[in-house]
This record gives sequence, C-alpha cells and structure tokens, in this order.
Amino acid sequence: MTSGSPARAALIALDWGTSSLRAYRLDGAGRTLDTRHLPWGIMRLPQPLQDGAATASTQSGFELAFEQACGDWLRAEPALPVIACGMVGSAQGWQEAAYLDVPVDLPRIGTLLTRIDRADATPVHIVPGLIQRHGLPNVMRGEETQVFGVLFDQAGSGADDVLIGLPGTHSKWVTARRGRATHFDTFMTGEVYAALRGHTILGRTMTEAPAPDMAAFERGVKVAGAPAGRAGVLSTIFSTRALGLTGELAGASQADYLSGLLIGHEVAALAEMLRQQGDLPRIVLCGDDALCQRYILALRHYGLGTPEQARNATERGLWHLAVCAGLVPAAQAAPPTSPASNKETP
Amino acid sequence: MTSGSPARAALIALDWGTSSLRAYRLDGAGRTLDTRHLPWGIMRLPQPLQDGAATASTQSGFELAFEQACGDWLRAEPALPVIACGMVGSAQGWQEAAYLDVPVDLPRIGTLLTRIDRADATPVHIVPGLIQRHGLPNVMRGEETQVFGVLFDQAGSGADDVLIGLPGTHSKWVTARRGRATHFDTFMTGEVYAALRGHTILGRTMTEAPAPDMAAFERGVKVAGAPAGRAGVLSTIFSTRALGLTGELAGASQADYLSGLLIGHEVAALAEMLRQQGDLPRIVLCGDDALCQRYILALRHYGLGTPEQARNATERGLWHLAVCAGLVPAAQAAPPTSPASNKETP
Repeated sequence: MTSGSPARAALIALDWGTSSLRAYRLDGAGRTLDTRHLPWGIMRLPQPLQDGAATASTQSGFELAFEQACGDWLRAEPALPVIACGMVGSAQGWQEAAYLDVPVDLPRIGTLLTRIDRADATPVHIVPGLIQRHGLPNVMRGEETQVFGVLFDQAGSGADDVLIGLPGTHSKWVTARRGRATHFDTFMTGEVYAALRGHTILGRTMTEAPAPDMAAFERGVKVAGAPAGRAGVLSTIFSTRALGLTGELAGASQADYLSGLLIGHEVAALAEMLRQQGDLPRIVLCGDDALCQRYILALRHYGLGTPEQARNATERGLWHLAVCAGLVPAAQAAPPTSPASNKETP
Repeated sequence: MTSGSPARAALIALDWGTSSLRAYRLDGAGRTLDTRHLPWGIMRLPQPLQDGAATASTQSGFELAFEQACGDWLRAEPALPVIACGMVGSAQGWQEAAYLDVPVDLPRIGTLLTRIDRADATPVHIVPGLIQRHGLPNVMRGEETQVFGVLFDQAGSGADDVLIGLPGTHSKWVTARRGRATHFDTFMTGEVYAALRGHTILGRTMTEAPAPDMAAFERGVKVAGAPAGRAGVLSTIFSTRALGLTGELAGASQADYLSGLLIGHEVAALAEMLRQQGDLPRIVLCGDDALCQRYILALRHYGLGTPEQARNATERGLWHLAVCAGLVPAAQAAPPTSPASNKETP
C-alpha cells in the first residue's frame, strides 16, 4: 500500500457540501493527482451499521463518508494533512467552524481553521465561513474558498474591484479588491427554481426536454428587464403556465423559460445595483460550465459584458488556504501575494 | 324530503377550486340558506369504489363530490339550477369552460356558461375564466366571479377605476371601471411561500409559533422597500435564514417574516406600477380575513391607503351571474346595473 509511488501527495482537500462530497489528492505543487465524487453531502450521509462489526457500529456517518473519500489515500501516506470546506463546518456539520466578518483579507481565512481531532487518526482542518453584518446579514460556507482560489490564481493582483459570481443552489456575488473580500450578496435562484419546478403548479405542465432550449431560456431572461418584468419575479413566473395555456410555450420549453426568468431577475437586479454604485467591475464567473453559460448570456443581455471564467477554484482555494495555514509548504506553489501565505510547515 | 319548507331555495352555487369545494344554497333574493365546505378540490376528489354497488362504480370523482355537496338539496327541490365557478372548469376539471378576453363587461360572463349535461340529472353550468393576451398572458378561473360579486354589490356604479385585490395562493389584482374588467396581474405569492417553507432550506430553521408574529411580518414587509430590498425577492428571502444564524430572528418568527417579505415585494411592485400609471385607484380587498389584514398592513406601508374589504363576494358573484344567465329570476335581487342582467328565466 505504502509504495514509493512517483505520484506522492502533499494534501488531501475536501469540498463537502449539503448534497455531495468531492475529495482531491494534491501534490506538492498543488496539482490534482486524484479526485473522487461521492453522494455523501452532510444532509445525506451513509448510515452507520446498527449491528455487525464493532468498528462500524462506533463510526458516525461523517467518519464513514470520510473513510470512503480518502481512507485508502491516508493509509498509503499517513502523514498527509487534510483540509475541508463547505457545510461540513455548519451547525449541522461534523464540527461547527467560525464565521469571519467581511471585509476580510482572504489569506486570514487560512489562519483560523477549526481542527477536528479524531482518536488516533489524522485531524481534519475546516475552513471558516464568511458573515456580513451590515444591512441584511448574509453568510457563506464553501464559496469563500472558491473566491480565494480565483483571487489567488487570477485576479489577486489587480487594484480594481473584481466581482466574482458563483452561480448555484444559492448564487453568491462577491466583491473583492487586492485579496480582500468587501461585500457579498446571495440569491436563492437555484433552490427556488427546484422548489417551483417540483412543488408548485408550474411543474405540472412541464415535460421532459431532449436538450436544453436556450431560446426559451433567453426569452425568460429578457422578460425580467422588459415592461412586463416590472411586477417582479413573483408575478412573471406565472407566465410560464399562462404562455403554456395560450399555446405560446411548449411544455418541453417551460423549465428553461422559468430558468431564464429567475436568472434574468437575479442579473437584472445585480446590474441595477452595480450601476447605482458607479463603475462596472470586472466580473469572473466560477461554477458548473453549463450554468455559467446561462449566466454569461444574462450578463451580456443586461449590459455587464462577457465575464471571465475561472476553473478548479475550489481545489485551488483549498490548496492556497492549506499553504496559508502552514499545513503544506509553499515551496513549489505559485508565489503568494500576501504575507500570511509565507508561513512554512512547522 | 320535498316538504314545503319555508326555506325554499332558488339556486345551488358551487365554488370549486383546486383544493376545496364550497356549496351554497341560495334563496330567491340571493341570500345564503345553507353552506357546506368539503375537501374535494379538483386535484383531490373522492375515489370511486372499484367494486360494490353498481351505481357507485359508474360515478366519477366529480359526481361523487357533487353528490356530497348538494345531492340531498337537489332531491328535495329537483328543479333547482346549479352554477359553478373555479378550476372545475379547467382542462383538469369536470368539463373545460372558455376563457373570455379582457377587457370584458363582466355581466357578459353570465351569458357564456358551459353546460355539463348529466344523464337524467340536473345540468351544471360552469362560469368561464378570463384571459389577458396583451403583454405577458395571464389567466384566472374563479376570481372573475368574486370580482363580479364585488363590483355588482359595492363598486359597480363608480366612474373611476377600482382595483380589486384577491390575495391567496395566486393573488390577483384586477382593475375595473363601470362593471368592465380592463386589466389584471397575478402574483404567485401564496404558493411560493408554501414551496419555500416546505421545500427549501428556509423551512429547516422555522419552528411552530403559538400565534402569528405580526411584528416579524411587518419587519419583512419593510425590507422590500428598503435599500436592502433592491436585490429583489430571490435575494431578500435568504435573510430569513441569515437573521436566524446571527440570532436576530427566532425560529418561531421566521415564517411570518418570510410572509412579510413576499407580500412586501408584491405590494411594493404593485405600488410602483400604480404610481407610474398616475392616479391611485380606490382599492377593495376580498379574501380570507387574516390574510387581508396582512395585505392591509402592507398597502398602508407602501402608501396605498387603507382598502375597503368585501365580504361573501363568491356567492354574491355566482348569484348575479346566475341572474345574468337567466337561471334564476332577478325579481328580488338588487337592481342590476347592466342590461344583460335583466334577463328572466325562460
């Protein structure tokens, strides 16, 4: 098991959210050697055996999931450090990790990890989330790591604001400048879409589509900024059904139209807020590629230009945070921009 | 059974929606003699017996529900006409009834009923819905009857616009003038509230409240019009959770806060649209009293004044439509304002 394989690792990094768990095995330069995708989100962990082997019966769902994610990697290289981000650090997670207040210098996140001590086993270091207390409060867990990954690799050196968009179940839009996160907004667009589709009358007339209908999506995007969109999203969503009843929108196009309406309202509101603030920032998108393509279309329609796209931001962020935390040496990593990330492993 | 009871009826009127069925037995002046509330909405009808009595096995769920609603009333007075409004006339209903285009003179609705012929039994006359084809299309079924009831009894004679608000699963706001419905908007506020509460993360931190928390409701209402509300409802709803995480909103207050947010966004959008049109109309609310109280608070907050409240609009509307249709004589009814309602029973 512990062969002197050339693919020697330096870090195990976990992206552990509500609905899934991704595990990365990274080398000393932060490059991905292996990756695994498991369905063990914190809200649907594997069930411990009620009887059978004594070892199994004393393990929690978190331990079982962890074992499947990286147990063999750790047996092969027992000294590897482990870092994790996401809802695993929430009150419903393995162990609750702090929230840091914004504005915050992102490398500071890496100095405030929460350590889970596991009996005679490798500890797990959990990344803190971010909290914004001015105006309506706002929180994130997991996205701070993506933001750090994006800023460190691509955008950290700019003196101007950069707006990082993280579309998903809960879309986050994070404003940053010189490695400092200053403000963020949350839109529940993805989760609202799923709830409307699965649990309201709008889903009843939708039929399966053989492929995404981007024309229907674009039609929805445009409504949010049209006169008909002034009534707001609580009103425009009903047109998904009404256009079906009048024969103007096929059942197979209704889901993409609804997606367009919701993303359109999100991006239209964002564009309006940005205009009120003055100069439009450079925008970087980070997330599932197909979803990013939808946001790119909406951003263009609402005059926000064509954003850049960042790749592999989560594993890059986890790597750089592990460097900041001193879990791995920075030696072969990209030159850090912040003094906090010059720390070496003790 | 067919006694010459002094409480002789003239009409059976049914308000038959998606989730429930209300039956009214009305006298010759349109006064309610009896009313019944059954759970047999068109999406949850009683199930016909698969075996047993031959009569039962040939009856549809609609027939079974109809029998429970008014079978005994019709056996006592077999000549009574029957009128029904609501989703019973939809494509998923007992028989599909037309949609009439707005603008429409409301008494005309009564001249275009769809008749369900039942073998050797009393036919049922179904009220058409309304459809609006300009801008984004919009439809209603059932609310047109309430609007007619409100206008006929209270507001039909005014030369100015009246805005009739019908809060509920799908709130409708209908503009009318001299008995003519000219425009309407739909907001899916009630259904979105239920979907968010039951099927998103927002419901997870909510706890049962011993009584409505109107302070939390009002707090939500105000957010929609505050600077923090500019991001729109897809964003502000997340504050239900974030305020809980920061200890600023108890679990037992979160449902009412969310209700306030949604109704606040609905009414704020409505107020903005009305201001762009010019003069603010007189507003009449019609619906569940506790829900109307919430809308009254929101309407006041957004500068739309204190609306009137209409009572019993559905049964009043069904009565007046039956008069327009010639199903019952108008003799003892209130003097109609439209020539269409002068018709007598043939």
